[in-house]
Amino acid sequence: METLIHPSTFNLQVSQPETPFLRACYRLPTDYTPVWFMRQAGRYMAEYRAIREKYTLLEICFHPELAAEVTLQPVRALGVDAAIIFADILLPLIPLGVGLDFAAGEGPVVGRPVRTMEDVAALKPIHAETDLSYVLEAIRIVRGELKDTPLIGFCGAPFTVASYMIEGGSSRDFLKTKTLMVSAPHIWHALMEKLTQTLADYLGAQIRAGAQAVQVFDSWVGALSPQDYEKFVLPYSARLLRSVAHYRVPVIHFGVNTATLLPLMKRAGGDVIGLDWRLPLDEGWALLGNDVAVQGNLDPTVLFAPLPEIKQRIEDVLRRANGRPGHIFNLGHGILQHTPVDHVKAAVDMVHEYGH
Amino acid sequence: METLIHPSTFNLQVSQPETPFLRACYRLPTDYTPVWFMRQAGRYMAEYRAIREKYTLLEICFHPELAAEVTLQPVRALGVDAAIIFADILLPLIPLGVGLDFAAGEGPVVGRPVRTMEDVAALKPIHAETDLSYVLEAIRIVRGELKDTPLIGFCGAPFTVASYMIEGGSSRDFLKTKTLMVSAPHIWHALMEKLTQTLADYLGAQIRAGAQAVQVFDSWVGALSPQDYEKFVLPYSARLLRSVAHYRVPVIHFGVNTATLLPLMKRAGGDVIGLDWRLPLDEGWALLGNDVAVQGNLDPTVLFAPLPEIKQRIEDVLRRANGRPGHIFNLGHGILQHTPVDHVKAAVDMVHEYGH
Repeated sequence: METLIHPSTFNLQVSQPETPFLRACYRLPTDYTPVWFMRQAGRYMAEYRAIREKYTLLEICFHPELAAEVTLQPVRALGVDAAIIFADILLPLIPLGVGLDFAAGEGPVVGRPVRTMEDVAALKPIHAETDLSYVLEAIRIVRGELKDTPLIGFCGAPFTVASYMIEGGSSRDFLKTKTLMVSAPHIWHALMEKLTQTLADYLGAQIRAGAQAVQVFDSWVGALSPQDYEKFVLPYSARLLRSVAHYRVPVIHFGVNTATLLPLMKRAGGDVIGLDWRLPLDEGWALLGNDVAVQGNLDPTVLFAPLPEIKQRIEDVLRRANGRPGHIFNLGHGILQHTPVDHVKAAVDMVHEYGH
Repeated sequence: METLIHPSTFNLQVSQPETPFLRACYRLPTDYTPVWFMRQAGRYMAEYRAIREKYTLLEICFHPELAAEVTLQPVRALGVDAAIIFADILLPLIPLGVGLDFAAGEGPVVGRPVRTMEDVAALKPIHAETDLSYVLEAIRIVRGELKDTPLIGFCGAPFTVASYMIEGGSSRDFLKTKTLMVSAPHIWHALMEKLTQTLADYLGAQIRAGAQAVQVFDSWVGALSPQDYEKFVLPYSARLLRSVAHYRVPVIHFGVNTATLLPLMKRAGGDVIGLDWRLPLDEGWALLGNDVAVQGNLDPTVLFAPLPEIKQRIEDVLRRANGRPGHIFNLGHGILQHTPVDHVKAAVDMVHEYGH
């Protein structure tokens, strides 16, 4: 009688997720709203700072047992509903050959920015299984340690990664990126083409290593007009997001400051779309439609407020979600450096207790 | 028969504006779309750099004849439809007594940031007529020089000015500002109260000195959620904008990254609302409604593109405005430092020639 069960249906059934985070990604009902935080492993935690005293950010990434330890710290300390592998969206820049360093207090520095066709051609072909094996190994270690908490893998979206490569680091106005895009579209498209392949390979490798969900960070895409997003970014984001569809793990598509891009980001893809605080959660979800889950959307600065104020604002977000399956609680962007740990822990408990 | 003419009607009639810029502010038809640029006097112009070699930014502001000269440079060189007085939104911080300097390449530095009730109480009462007389004198000089080009005066909005005073300078996440707002609302409201009075006095003085329109810069308000804007900012912006209504000069209400705040900004007031490039002009105008003029909305980075690309994008903006009275062409934010002057000049001509 086994022939009556279509193989793909069978696969789907055995992989029906049981944890609140994965269920919410698929808009299945959960007993409580799952919560995790972007940058939940980081400098606001004493355990993390203790490790950072001895190792640089890149050294932690390069040593899978350290990266795994740092990944697990917030799971133990906070009781969040998902872990996210400790890594950086710019790690692929190292094997690509453009040079990457983190200057103290100044963020990433790209040694040889990419601005010409020759620069694009000089990018080395990379294979995540070998060139980024340390991330994959960290994923395997974390999966061996975690029982019921799903692990999220991630990569940067082609636009956001390209912006660092072109600007040479962080940027306020993305002038070099936008100018390349508009004035030398052939170079832009060649770079995006290469990055999309690279990132798709990397994301797939993370899933094969054990990541049970993936997030694509298009953190700075909110600098673009919808017209430029549609023309210069959407096709590549769509290809990257589609590239992992056959793995049947949920994909979270994230950006900041995206109120006017949301319908296009949804078209690009993702089971879950990230929302920041600039749009009330219910309005953001209405803009996106019923057929997608959402993640967000507390302003990260709220975690510096007194607990009763935090509670009120968390309840406002949850009230706007209105118990509808498919909401993952998160901040609108990463946890800030000096956030009080006890406030983060309290926030997790508040989300879990809401409605009980 | 003069008694048949109601005095206010009479005033309105004699003050019926004749220049395209002022007519557009009141949504009256014009022969072509008026255009000016935020930061049109600045480092991208050789004439300005020549003066900056000898004087600091603050020295230019303090010397009315220098400020007037710098104000007139882009009117002569570009043929824009409005001048804007050369000044800085943070000038009122000097008489308020918190200290202000511009560190080379790092933007404004506030010597004694305002973070406690004592800090707010220590702010000195200021009177623009005496404490900021140099700006008013510059306005008088420019008005004496300009024949047909109207002059715009301006100030920062209470939120944006407060953010610099609290952060001590520029900011990326506005953590100190938002934390004060949420955690110590009594201090926030006391500061906003004082700033609103100060800025209203300053804006009124500029109009009395001869400014024929004013712009209120709430440049960084896009960092806020609509809920926080409505509660902590809107009442003060509304009071400032209303405070100059009786002068019968048009008021431009400007911010960046405000897609989700536009209906609230309109409620706060202004004859003209600024739009940035994150929302296509027609969609932004539709969100605001018919009863307000709009200003914008080219991405400032577009001026670095080749001329045919600039032309195409200017035409897209103008096509979206669809000839409807009440559109003032501008960038979505200020001209960037290294913008090619000939591109700026070409952009002015392109706007003027469109539809002819």
